[in-house]
Amino acid sequence: MRVGVVKLGAIGTAVLLEYCLDEIARREDIDTFVISSGSKIKPEILEDIKGENFDLLIITCPNAGRILEPEKLRFKIRTVVVTDSADKEWLESVECGYIVVKADSMIGAKREFLDPTEMALYNSYVLGVLAGTGVIRLVQHEINRALKEDYIPKVVVDCWKAVEFGGFSNPYAKAKAMAGYVIAETVSKLTTRACFVERDFERFVLLCATAHEMMRIANALVDQAREIEKSNDTVLRTPHSKDGGILRKTELLERI
Amino acid sequence: MRVGVVKLGAIGTAVLLEYCLDEIARREDIDTFVISSGSKIKPEILEDIKGENFDLLIITCPNAGRILEPEKLRFKIRTVVVTDSADKEWLESVECGYIVVKADSMIGAKREFLDPTEMALYNSYVLGVLAGTGVIRLVQHEINRALKEDYIPKVVVDCWKAVEFGGFSNPYAKAKAMAGYVIAETVSKLTTRACFVERDFERFVLLCATAHEMMRIANALVDQAREIEKSNDTVLRTPHSKDGGILRKTELLERI
Amino acid sequence: MRVGVVKLGAIGTAVLLEYCLDEIARREDIDTFVISSGSKIKPEILEDIKGENFDLLIITCPNAGRILEPEKLRFKIRTVVVTDSADKEWLESVECGYIVVKADSMIGAKREFLDPTEMALYNSYVLGVLAGTGVIRLVQHEINRALKEDYIPKVVVDCWKAVEFGGFSNPYAKAKAMAGYVIAETVSKLTTRACFVERDFERFVLLCATAHEMMRIANALVDQAREIEKSNDTVLRTPHSKDGGILRKTELLERI
Amino acid sequence: MRVGVVKLGAIGTAVLLEYCLDEIARREDIDTFVISSGSKIKPEILEDIKGENFDLLIITCPNAGRILEPEKLRFKIRTVVVTDSADKEWLESVECGYIVVKADSMIGAKREFLDPTEMALYNSYVLGVLAGTGVIRLVQHEINRALKEDYIPKVVVDCWKAVEFGGFSNPYAKAKAMAGYVIAETVSKLTTRACFVERDFERFVLLCATAHEMMRIANALVDQAREIEKSNDTVLRTPHSKDGGILRKTELLERI
Amino acid sequence: MRVGVVKLGAIGTAVLLEYCLDEIARREDIDTFVISSGSKIKPEILEDIKGENFDLLIITCPNAGRILEPEKLRFKIRTVVVTDSADKEWLESVECGYIVVKADSMIGAKREFLDPTEMALYNSYVLGVLAGTGVIRLVQHEINRALKEDYIPKVVVDCWKAVEFGGFSNPYAKAKAMAGYVIAETVSKLTTRACFVERDFERFVLLCATAHEMMRIANALVDQAREIEKSNDTVLRTPHSKDGGILRKTELLERI
Amino acid sequence: MRVGVVKLGAIGTAVLLEYCLDEIARREDIDTFVISSGSKIKPEILEDIKGENFDLLIITCPNAGRILEPEKLRFKIRTVVVTDSADKEWLESVECGYIVVKADSMIGAKREFLDPTEMALYNSYVLGVLAGTGVIRLVQHEINRALKEDYIPKVVVDCWKAVEFGGFSNPYAKAKAMAGYVIAETVSKLTTRACFVERDFERFVLLCATAHEMMRIANALVDQAREIEKSNDTVLRTPHSKDGGILRKTELLERI
Repeated sequence: MRVGVVKLGAIGTAVLLEYCLDEIARREDIDTFVISSGSKIKPEILEDIKGENFDLLIITCPNAGRILEPEKLRFKIRTVVVTDSADKEWLESVECGYIVVKADSMIGAKREFLDPTEMALYNSYVLGVLAGTGVIRLVQHEINRALKEDYIPKVVVDCWKAVEFGGFSNPYAKAKAMAGYVIAETVSKLTTRACFVERDFERFVLLCATAHEMMRIANALVDQAREIEKSNDTVLRTPHSKDGGILRKTELLERI
Repeated sequence: MRVGVVKLGAIGTAVLLEYCLDEIARREDIDTFVISSGSKIKPEILEDIKGENFDLLIITCPNAGRILEPEKLRFKIRTVVVTDSADKEWLESVECGYIVVKADSMIGAKREFLDPTEMALYNSYVLGVLAGTGVIRLVQHEINRALKEDYIPKVVVDCWKAVEFGGFSNPYAKAKAMAGYVIAETVSKLTTRACFVERDFERFVLLCATAHEMMRIANALVDQAREIEKSNDTVLRTPHSKDGGILRKTELLERI
Repeated sequence: MRVGVVKLGAIGTAVLLEYCLDEIARREDIDTFVISSGSKIKPEILEDIKGENFDLLIITCPNAGRILEPEKLRFKIRTVVVTDSADKEWLESVECGYIVVKADSMIGAKREFLDPTEMALYNSYVLGVLAGTGVIRLVQHEINRALKEDYIPKVVVDCWKAVEFGGFSNPYAKAKAMAGYVIAETVSKLTTRACFVERDFERFVLLCATAHEMMRIANALVDQAREIEKSNDTVLRTPHSKDGGILRKTELLERI
Repeated sequence: MRVGVVKLGAIGTAVLLEYCLDEIARREDIDTFVISSGSKIKPEILEDIKGENFDLLIITCPNAGRILEPEKLRFKIRTVVVTDSADKEWLESVECGYIVVKADSMIGAKREFLDPTEMALYNSYVLGVLAGTGVIRLVQHEINRALKEDYIPKVVVDCWKAVEFGGFSNPYAKAKAMAGYVIAETVSKLTTRACFVERDFERFVLLCATAHEMMRIANALVDQAREIEKSNDTVLRTPHSKDGGILRKTELLERI
Repeated sequence: MRVGVVKLGAIGTAVLLEYCLDEIARREDIDTFVISSGSKIKPEILEDIKGENFDLLIITCPNAGRILEPEKLRFKIRTVVVTDSADKEWLESVECGYIVVKADSMIGAKREFLDPTEMALYNSYVLGVLAGTGVIRLVQHEINRALKEDYIPKVVVDCWKAVEFGGFSNPYAKAKAMAGYVIAETVSKLTTRACFVERDFERFVLLCATAHEMMRIANALVDQAREIEKSNDTVLRTPHSKDGGILRKTELLERI
Repeated sequence: MRVGVVKLGAIGTAVLLEYCLDEIARREDIDTFVISSGSKIKPEILEDIKGENFDLLIITCPNAGRILEPEKLRFKIRTVVVTDSADKEWLESVECGYIVVKADSMIGAKREFLDPTEMALYNSYVLGVLAGTGVIRLVQHEINRALKEDYIPKVVVDCWKAVEFGGFSNPYAKAKAMAGYVIAETVSKLTTRACFVERDFERFVLLCATAHEMMRIANALVDQAREIEKSNDTVLRTPHSKDGGILRKTELLERI
């Protein structure tokens, strides 16, 4: 099977998406091909792959509910949009699948605060939150089901949905992960304000800084959750097998 | 200017590369276009962009010294290879530019240890190390010089080179960042052993786990370095201006 | 002057309120007298002090906007209500003063989760957040102005208002404190849901646990902010003088 | 039953005392009524409640052994004094009950160090120590027995007594809690010295700062103890039932 | 000059004593010679070095006030006893010099708790406390004065004395170090009880564990103090010059 | 039996060696006698004990492979050299036993960086690493076997060998300890460079600082490993019995 990924702009869940499908590059059942227009959102690059022969098309895009018009998302091949935000109306009107990751909050995108280094740090925190809460595993499973079954994901990921895939065996670890998710989700309220509403220099810079501190601590909290699971040797692992199945193990020194 | 990025396989420095060139998507002087073959390394996708009209081509690839033959790296357009490892001979024989990031160590790529979640966490740690030590800024500057000047980077990044771009004003912060870099660099010795040498199940799993703990703590150490700079309000920020210049500021509430 | 304090039910800001007015018990200008009905909210105890001769009356009450009817808040003596929540309509209709502390979120008040020990821990976290962000100092100043001037506070405390009194000299410390405030504020969304909406046992217990983890980490973040100020010897201190004035010092070994 | 609480001055154990008896305000068997003279110790307010009809009277007071004369503690209703310090002679001469909490050390009450913010932080630490070691649960149980049985508590709480109620299942968690208790107990030696002996400005300020750092770290240590119990899902919870009984649970998702 | 060191039993200050006199082994003015009877205290080994020609003799011994009789401490050469404990009477009756380090508390020496690994960890904590508070520098200076001048140290090291040598420039760092010292000092109360008083198995084991947790956290606190000084680049360094003088520097990249 | 210990120069494993053989000074089967030339390496002191009647001789020396010539290590009594480094040739040519502890890396021995305080801190970190990973227990066992059996240790301690004696029951704790060991081992590359190669002042000072930060974080990581084992009450303890046997226990409150 061939999986096409089109990345428009930047969201955390997109960053490692292609690797999530084949983390050790040993799957024999799929190939992935990715194109991206970088940080600028250029839906026109979708044209570039129109002729391509994919079994599944994944489009990642921030704020898809605003940026991707439902009528432009009608492709011949099955399609899943991965985004951080979309309203109910959009979700109901699109024909394609979607995964909306609420914790994948917008970065503090003000030149006076954000440089490539700060951008990379923020993404480091976001990846920690996504991985540690269960979002990465959710994406893995949802996309795999779409590949292997007649299924198209339609999932809005809130803290409950995330930890459903987190595989926690300790309830306090679960609560810490949920807390991290909720904090990460709250970040977008501040960054949206900083980027689009607040005009006072000092205030928008402080809002960006506050938002990034929140994502940093959300990551720290989620990391604590995983450390608890480690201390109990109950970390769930779900690697892909060569044929693209999803294996499971929880004890580190357990064979699969 | 148009920048083409071809990502072969996965290395940490590649993950956010395109966003490092235009972190808030406001640069008016460049466009980027990225293609990737996902976790599988397929140099043949280089063919896909041969016809494209780029001003600079960036190829990211793990272990380039082994995987990319120097004679196949002769393109009409200026090219920079970004990799984690290449020996002296290769470096001397290639005509193109290169950035070799020694701390960008190979992941613990054993199915019994690595799943998409662990993969994402590892990359979260690596990104923290790269950003916090100065590598992200180095890449930003080197690629920008290649775009703006008649210059092609030929840089091997060790801990000294990284912190040269880290912009530390406190020497202990600098030492902590260097320590993080050195630890991150050491990781590859363990993962290489785990992936290619060690056959005993328990030993290769433990080697992977040890390697990831090292990257995790390297990230924590680098984070401490940045926290020190924050506590002194001396964090260097180098955002891009609209015209693609690189601005500088160190006090958070300083205008640029 | 005599200050009367009536505590209805429990909110964090109330817990140490009387001590905030005279922290070393040396003020010669005021006396305080406090009554409380414990955790149960019994507005009828207001009757008990009707005959008392106070210069200022402070009423603390959770969710005042719902519980205290504006018409019942018309006393002969000047009155300030301290609460965690009140809507705009209530704020506009009351004649008395108010301090609404948004971060003073409701506890996870479910018997299956909350016992006296957990209750005390939560209050420990809340007090840390209130003190470390600036709310305690805000209350100190607002009440003192009401005592010393012809002034009645009408303040809704969001993160900006809190840190205005926090006295931070390092902007990252300020951002961390703001982040802590915002997280603390978000807690009430989860506890309200846990207490009044969610009926599933596992879900309301986990919501409570998640909420308390959020308050715990908010406190940790605010503590980091203060540690930064300590490391720069810039902690603002505003003790009362004997005559009830508010003194200021920032260097620890500075005399006042 | 009606419980009367008279708070004289400030001690940590008093701060949340009334809420410890009815943490979710659902007990149908008791009512509490509290009066306080704020930070100033005014035993004369005891007169205010003389006429009141209580089943149990709780008086909180720092340094009761010095401040409350045994002969003045002879009330018609059963009475329990909660304090931080009382010598053997006093303990033997009083007829009423007592709970002496040795870890509830005096604050660093020097104007040059203590302001309302620092006071609130110190209490935040103290509450963490009291709750996390077991003192809050001890108070809950002792007062409840006094309410429900023909019993009057006569307890001096040292580290052994505290952790007897802490409910630790991990012995290292217990040792950490005990360590926190002992450190908290030691604090009073420094604050007493700072407040009543040391006259050199720099020395008494440093003593206060040292004492508060000790309480801060004691709290951190006790928090680690609870985190260990959380990681094993063995946190003891003893909420009140509606009829005032004390329930028990240890697994978070266990029903009661 | 020749310095003789006789180590009787084990105390933390003794462990690295000889290295403190010549930390990089480049001093040309002194030679040291050390003998020890290991963990067993055998004052008779003092005989072994009687014939030796020393300019200064240092004897380290736990609880010297009990173990070393004043009349047996009359040597022809100048002598300094380093110990953790000695009462006033002993201090006044000995002719030799002494350094009594109160924070150098006895280990939890019960077979059921202490093994070589735990012993080494405890010493690791103690060394951190001694170094970070200033005791190591105090010993360095006192012994050097005894070598270079007509001076014999008679010092009892409490928290004030320690931090006098700590060289702190930040007052909160100083307070944290003092707090660490006081906690370390308190440890001996628990270990003495565990080793000589308490007979109940569970209680003496828990006392040992509690004591070691206290020393561990004392070390952590002192480490925080140093981290603050690092963050301000104000760590005092006092290396020996080749001729045995004591140099000073505070900025890390300052030359000497 | 009599054990002689000769300490030449300074290595971490030597610091507490004699105490590791008899940690509570109750063994009735052995006596130890130690001599040392302090930080200066003076092999001639070996002469001092030639006449002594030992059952086992332990010589500790940094870089033994360079400093101790194999032919000079031929004593009549059985001898074990403890060192941090020796090459294969040396190991094969010596007749005596050896324990080579790779993690016992050389200190940053530059006067511009190292003073007695920094030296003591470094040793504090090293001891933590040695104890926490298992090296101290390995030394205990190897020396004990040499005392009790016809056995002479010939051991090079890498991370596997260390944790074999660490007694970890949690695999992540084991991996953290291994990571700490590997980081500690890497330190010597930097210190060797700083001491013998690098001539630039700023670079060798920063190398020393980096190396010590690495050892500090290695210790922190190993400490986390032990905390995990504590949280599971699975810390292995191997105290000596009176007759010099090695006992074992893992639960803290288990009797032996």
